[in-house]
Amino acid sequence: MTARLSPSEVPAVPPRILLGPGPSTAHPRVLQAMMAPMIGYLDPDFMKILDEVSALLRRVFQTDDSLALAISGTGSAGMEAGINSLLEPGDTVVMCICGFFGGRMADMAERVGANVVTLQSEWGKPFPPDLLEAELSNHERVKLVTIVHAETSTGVLQPLGEVAALAKERDALLMVDAVTSLGGGRVGVDEVGIDYCYSATQKCLACPPGMAPVALGARALDAVRARGQKPTSWYLDLDLIAKYWGPEHVYHHTAPVSNIVGLREALRIVLEEGLDARIERHHRNAMALRAGLEALGLDLVVDARHSLDQITPVWIPDGVDDLEVRQTLLRKYKIEIGRGLGSFAGRVWRIGLMGESSRAENVFAFLSAMEEILPSVGYEVARGAGVAEASKLLAGSA
Amino acid sequence: MTARLSPSEVPAVPPRILLGPGPSTAHPRVLQAMMAPMIGYLDPDFMKILDEVSALLRRVFQTDDSLALAISGTGSAGMEAGINSLLEPGDTVVMCICGFFGGRMADMAERVGANVVTLQSEWGKPFPPDLLEAELSNHERVKLVTIVHAETSTGVLQPLGEVAALAKERDALLMVDAVTSLGGGRVGVDEVGIDYCYSATQKCLACPPGMAPVALGARALDAVRARGQKPTSWYLDLDLIAKYWGPEHVYHHTAPVSNIVGLREALRIVLEEGLDARIERHHRNAMALRAGLEALGLDLVVDARHSLDQITPVWIPDGVDDLEVRQTLLRKYKIEIGRGLGSFAGRVWRIGLMGESSRAENVFAFLSAMEEILPSVGYEVARGAGVAEASKLLAGSA
Repeated sequence: MTARLSPSEVPAVPPRILLGPGPSTAHPRVLQAMMAPMIGYLDPDFMKILDEVSALLRRVFQTDDSLALAISGTGSAGMEAGINSLLEPGDTVVMCICGFFGGRMADMAERVGANVVTLQSEWGKPFPPDLLEAELSNHERVKLVTIVHAETSTGVLQPLGEVAALAKERDALLMVDAVTSLGGGRVGVDEVGIDYCYSATQKCLACPPGMAPVALGARALDAVRARGQKPTSWYLDLDLIAKYWGPEHVYHHTAPVSNIVGLREALRIVLEEGLDARIERHHRNAMALRAGLEALGLDLVVDARHSLDQITPVWIPDGVDDLEVRQTLLRKYKIEIGRGLGSFAGRVWRIGLMGESSRAENVFAFLSAMEEILPSVGYEVARGAGVAEASKLLAGSA
Repeated sequence: MTARLSPSEVPAVPPRILLGPGPSTAHPRVLQAMMAPMIGYLDPDFMKILDEVSALLRRVFQTDDSLALAISGTGSAGMEAGINSLLEPGDTVVMCICGFFGGRMADMAERVGANVVTLQSEWGKPFPPDLLEAELSNHERVKLVTIVHAETSTGVLQPLGEVAALAKERDALLMVDAVTSLGGGRVGVDEVGIDYCYSATQKCLACPPGMAPVALGARALDAVRARGQKPTSWYLDLDLIAKYWGPEHVYHHTAPVSNIVGLREALRIVLEEGLDARIERHHRNAMALRAGLEALGLDLVVDARHSLDQITPVWIPDGVDDLEVRQTLLRKYKIEIGRGLGSFAGRVWRIGLMGESSRAENVFAFLSAMEEILPSVGYEVARGAGVAEASKLLAGSA
């Protein structure tokens, strides 16, 4: 039984300029770090690495009070670990939803038998806190309030202050999705007062996908430990996971060594650049992209006050074929952008500038490609206008 | 906020000879493959890679009839995906247990509200099928029978034929844990008739930990799709995962790109060596290790007829300190071996020879280290006896 593949049969991983919703470009130092040899999941030297990742994560989550760790799965595993561990059957959870990923969270909560209340508000705008306030008054006890910080599907940056205050007032735990903001935006776990915050590695951390960094506050951990029955999932049981990452380092499952070593390097890079400088870089490149898109006559989905710097949704002009443009971008220019999800499907493109993908050269590459493609699909643009506008904002930056 | 680390502060990943229960040594070609750049999880070129991984996995699982895929988590995630997706509340599952990992499976099944029947038999011996036969006659309907093929905690290779026949006779699904055997032993999914078989990447596949390859038969997939209520976990819902890996490639979660590309390389390496040759290599090195251990006067836990070639448990001689020996091995010789689990804790050492760790030079390195260490902890051995015995069986091999 042999299967030596000739080179022509081997599909390679082709190069891409990744301007979609993630994965973003992985930092070469992260990929190199992941080449480290294997080591045992309870080896004393590996425990030092775990401790370092935990300490670095606390700085990126901006928390002194929470235990920070990385779950052995993608961002959705971080989402489900929270839902699964914080909710017991019959517990009431109020979900503030104004995008695609709120729906996934509700599906998870229904699976564990929670009493799920979903509050839906308009896509492309922040969630209005008064909707939450009104709903909370309908319930005697709410265990958990959930909200998405950076809505990848709509490109909205959600202000968290009022929502957090309302949850606190009612003694409900607050769970926040920071999948798209961590490492490229200000998450501020302690400042906001987030009890459970989860993210992913393949967006602003410039790491391959495969882990979900989370910050687990004392109130959330108490809630997990006070449960009447175990969470429905063993693999995503935050109590067991916290015991492995905590000082006692109790075996739970074999840790994904390479992913953890890669994440460590990614976090070091974030802090070497400096969190403030990195947030500023994401902002500057997003501003340039938005200016360039507008110079091409395209309409942005989100109001400037609420735009997310990590992903910019833009309306597809009337008569322009969504798929044709995205396929040309991918095939001819090697550029991936995001399609619209849910009610935005076919109506919106989403351009991500996250982590290593948030670079001036990518803004220019994308805008100039669009300047070539759009006229060929019947939408006239002034060639050079987008790039020119963006370059004004990017003078001297990278 | 900067944190440039000086080299002295950076804990490196130190080199190890990994002879524990996994992770084993990762093949350098696998680590190199994982350095490939990122690509989108629905990119047409990435779909080709998924399809190739699936086809290669079918060959290693020895199945034409099952869908093969890799779950985005470690081996335990593969275990829980099966338990979670195949069992509904009230369903009866009969678990054949003669080691540590059966207990974990029972915990998972209880969490989803199944009627869990655990059959325990003696550690260090195969599970006796007549125990299952007697139990099955007590139930009108059994949904699932579970068993571990290669018990890492006890070093026993479980014959599967009779157990499979009993499950089939009663129309129960058969779930098999092949975490330690896949890629180093004969799993034979079609030949045995396994409905759900799961494994892990960090043992005989010589890949870093982080994914759980599984083979999902048609009967198992039918059972998942015929459920009255959704599985309690969304992340581990085999129906949704199968739709991403199947020909329709429906988005579920962001695939862990690097881990999948690494797994592809690992599977190519397995088939280049040839599954038969690889199984023979594992057998030859295990025979040499066992001969060497016996030449040092140590007693093997498992009878020769039922020994697992991937991990060899040996009784710790009276008066010898377990931890002292393992720590000396790790600190002085950079060799990791496994400790005893459960009732074997403190009584047994487990020496793994899996994937790239199953090499003649590792057998010699371990035996010669033990020949130096054992006399220093009060257990006399004839220096050179173990290595000499092993070398007789390893003449001309690697």
